[in-house]
Formats: sequence, C-alpha cells, structure tokens
Amino acid sequence: MTDTATATPPLIAIDWGTTSLRGALLGPEGQVLEERQAAQGILQVPAGGFATVFEQHFGDWARRPGSLTLISGMAGSRQGWLEAPYCACPAGFAQLAQGLAWLPGLPWRVGIVPGVSTEAQQVPDVMRGEEVQIFGALQLAKLHSATLVLPGTHSKWATVQDGQITGFSTWMTGEVYALLSQHSILARSLPPDAVFDELAFERGVQQAQQGPSLLHTAFGTRTLQLMGRMPDDALASYLSGLVIGEELRGQAFSTSASDTPLLLIGSPSLTQRYAQALALLGRSSRRWGSEATWAGLWALSRQWPSP
Amino acid sequence: MTDTATATPPLIAIDWGTTSLRGALLGPEGQVLEERQAAQGILQVPAGGFATVFEQHFGDWARRPGSLTLISGMAGSRQGWLEAPYCACPAGFAQLAQGLAWLPGLPWRVGIVPGVSTEAQQVPDVMRGEEVQIFGALQLAKLHSATLVLPGTHSKWATVQDGQITGFSTWMTGEVYALLSQHSILARSLPPDAVFDELAFERGVQQAQQGPSLLHTAFGTRTLQLMGRMPDDALASYLSGLVIGEELRGQAFSTSASDTPLLLIGSPSLTQRYAQALALLGRSSRRWGSEATWAGLWALSRQWPSP
Repeated sequence: MTDTATATPPLIAIDWGTTSLRGALLGPEGQVLEERQAAQGILQVPAGGFATVFEQHFGDWARRPGSLTLISGMAGSRQGWLEAPYCACPAGFAQLAQGLAWLPGLPWRVGIVPGVSTEAQQVPDVMRGEEVQIFGALQLAKLHSATLVLPGTHSKWATVQDGQITGFSTWMTGEVYALLSQHSILARSLPPDAVFDELAFERGVQQAQQGPSLLHTAFGTRTLQLMGRMPDDALASYLSGLVIGEELRGQAFSTSASDTPLLLIGSPSLTQRYAQALALLGRSSRRWGSEATWAGLWALSRQWPSP
Repeated sequence: MTDTATATPPLIAIDWGTTSLRGALLGPEGQVLEERQAAQGILQVPAGGFATVFEQHFGDWARRPGSLTLISGMAGSRQGWLEAPYCACPAGFAQLAQGLAWLPGLPWRVGIVPGVSTEAQQVPDVMRGEEVQIFGALQLAKLHSATLVLPGTHSKWATVQDGQITGFSTWMTGEVYALLSQHSILARSLPPDAVFDELAFERGVQQAQQGPSLLHTAFGTRTLQLMGRMPDDALASYLSGLVIGEELRGQAFSTSASDTPLLLIGSPSLTQRYAQALALLGRSSRRWGSEATWAGLWALSRQWPSP
C-alpha cells in the first residue's frame, strides 16, 4: 500500500456476476493496486445478504476516506443487490453514468452500473457487465468505433460507433458446446482428456462456413468417428470449431465492412481460440482480458454525476 | 388368426431401434395381422442375447412354416445383432435387398436390412431404419421421387429420385430442443406443464427464417420472458418453433423446386407440427406413421434374392 493510494480517494471496481465476484482497488491513474476474487456470485448470496458479503470482501477498501465503489454485472439485475434498469441502445458512457443506481443506507458511496438493452427483429436482447468491458477495451485501444466480441457461455457481439453501443446480440455458443459435448449423443464419442487439436478445430470452423446449420453439422462429429475418418482425440476440438464457426458464420463477414477494428475480450484461452478462427476467415483482431473491466469502471468513475 | 395367415408363409416385420423393439405379423397382401412392441431396444439387450429376446417376443410367429423375418434399424449396427454394412447412396430397393445380412445358425430365415450412407462436404452421414420407412411411404404414396422428412431426435431429410435415395442429411433437432428446454439457462423460464401454443410456435418458425442462427435466436426465449413480452406458457412452443424453423431454414426452400412432393414420416403429433411449420412457409406435405415401416419391409420381402 503506497502513500498515494491512501491519500487519494480510491475507486473500488467490482464485477459481480452470476457465479463469481471479482474486485480491484484502483489508484488515482486507474492502476490496479490489488485484486480479489471469490466464488460468491449473486446466486450464492442469500436473500438480503449483499451488503454483508460486500463488507466481508471489500469492507477494508470501502472504509478508506472518500471511497467510491462501482459495481457492474448481474448485481444490478432483478435477482441482484439493487435493480438498475437497462439503458436502451444507442447507449454511451453518459447514459451509463446517468443510469447508475446508488445504494441507499450504506456508510459508503456504492453505485450499480445499469445493463444495456437492444431490440432486433422484434426480439429484445440484454447485457449486464459486458458494457463496462466494452467501454474499457475501447479506452485501452484508444478507439471510438469497433466491433467487440466477448466470447463465453453467452457470447456477445456489439457494434460501437462514435462511442455509442448501437446494437448487440447474444449467442449461446459456450452453453451449446457444453450441452453437446457433455449431454448429447456426441458425448460418448468424445474422450474426456483430449488436448486441443488445432487442425481439427480449424477444420470445424471451415466446415461451419458451408452451413447449412449447426443442427446438421454437429452430427458429423459422430459420423466422422463412426466411419473412422477422424481420431477420437480430435473430435472435441472439431466440435468446438463447428460451434464457434457457426457463430462467426452468423456475423456474415463477407457483407460487413472489413476495416472495422475487431476487439476480443475474455479469458486468454478463449479469445485465443476466437482469434485463430477469425484469422482463418481473414480477419485480424486484438485481445483484451480482465483489465478491460477495471478500465471501464475507472473511466466511468470520471463521468458520474454527483450522487 | 385366420386360415389365410396360417396357410401363407408369413412375413415378420421388425423395427429394432436403440431404445424400442416393434414387430408386426403381415399377411399375404402386406396387411397387419398383429402388432407387438417392447421397451427392449438394442441398448437393453445383454451381450449375445439377441436371439433369446427375439424368440421371447416373436418365437410363435417365427415357428410358422416358411416364415421370413426382416429386421430394420439399429439391430444391424456394430452394437446390434449382426452388422449389416451401409449401402452407399444412390441406394434403391435392389441394393438394400442385396445387402441383407442373413443370420446364421437359426432355425428360421432372419435377414437384417442394411443402413444407408452418404457423404457431403467431405463428411459422411448415416441412417438405419429410416431407409425402410422411406421406401414404405413411397409405396403407399405411389411415388418414385420425393423429398422425405423423418422428424425426431435426429431428423432425416432424404431425396429420392426414380426410386433411389440420392442423398440425405441428419439434423439433431429433437435432441437440441430437449437439451435447450431441459438443461440450458432457458429451462428455468419454461413452465413444465404448458400446453402447445400454436401461435407462439408459428412465431418461432417465422423468427427462425430471418436467421442468423439458432445459437442467437434461442436466447430470445429468455429475453422475451425477461422483458414481459411473451407469456410464460407460450415460451416452450416458441422455442420449438425456433428449433424446427432452423431445420426448415437449412433446407433453403426458396431455391429448391417446389413441385417435389414432400412426405413426412413419424409420430402423428410430431409430423403434425412439421406440417404446420411447412404450411406456414407455403409448402404442402403428406403424413405417414408406422405403417410406412411395415409397408417398406413387406415390399422388400418381395425383392430379396434367395438366401
């Protein structure tokens, strides 16, 4: 702990998701002074227990004079600490700041960042937490317009133009891969301990580009094994390529402007896999990790109106 | 039991699948004299136990003088009674008959019908049992060319031209619907006892036609509920429409000749749902049930070479 950190009102940046809780203490320049995490996502917090869990993990930080805490993620959902209604697209930093939900009755200033909603083809879509990562990555990349991809259980693809999220979509890619590889007829074909097979993954990505749909191509994982046309150890990587490749096919790169920067945000292993698939389709990308969350919350702390 | 049935060598038609065993005793004109079924699919038969299970359920039929038994389905797979290698497309009745695998060492004539294989985009595809239903439905419909759809856990789409299956594809539609509705994040949104909602189903079918992929559209089931835009009781039907609609979108009807007859084969409730979805896309269809299996095996019994 440095003198600077003690002397300047600190920012406590928190990403409180469905299954995990991560926090960082940020210094006056947004630098990370300390990080903490716990397996206490909102589903693990008993009713009425959010303030207690918060104090338990971050009370010593919050008690510093003038502290400000900003929380993004599912803590702002209906099942969370305090509901922060969604900001509708187009949504920029200013809208997020205006939409902050301040927790009443606490000895410290704690604001919850709203999620963002959009609508396409008469169906709504929502995100909570990713919007902060998006603005954080844009800050770090010094960009005002980009396509941002946040791969995961429910991947998000967002378009940002002139600092505004103009639209986004959710893809159940990670969850469908888990269901197919663990619970479908394909599960019995996949050895549990296979290592990642780069070539099989790339073959899956390419196969997916030909369509017609994952509903059909996924069955190929079984027939390739049945006919002895692919080694068992390669099948899981092939299936991963099919599922991620289906997501990329849905973005219809051939018709989109190829000079829009593409930023990937997520765990290194997952963004690496997406970067590889994108490169195969002729698209370069840049990758960011959890630093995007802290950068986003820090940038937001410079914008919020007085509570 | 009629005199005719006793006097004429009977055909015992059997569909032995992964999880069920169904059989019919057919008269000289192919008419069904008696049907039986048991929950003894090939996965429930102990190693070396196929002859015993067969005799237990159908021994009295097989002991009739001159009896012939034809078995289709997974009984001819590597995990079945006797492997009957796949016939490669294009495959007609003659190829199936030539590929019959006759069981040695039995007091009766028992032949196992081979499955059919095809290949598209360097990936093989296979069917076992459906080929008999396909030829049976064509017999009943008096057609030599058609598109045949067998909806189910793993739906099949087959093209028949001049009596030959020229190609087909497998779709994991039923299985993916089960996984999404029972094991994904969507499961908690779906009330377990909702009745079929026709309008929500049709909305799902239409939504799927706009793409870009089920990986994205399925998430709409959750957001429509979250935003209070669809009653809970309608969500499962909407999701069913999305999944079946994705299968239909993959068939790219807009580019296929619309004067090819479309035959649906399967359980009445499922073929009814597909017929409704197809009608919504401007395609008429005709529906067949288990009679297609018996008709197919009966027609095949007129073609096999002497054992």
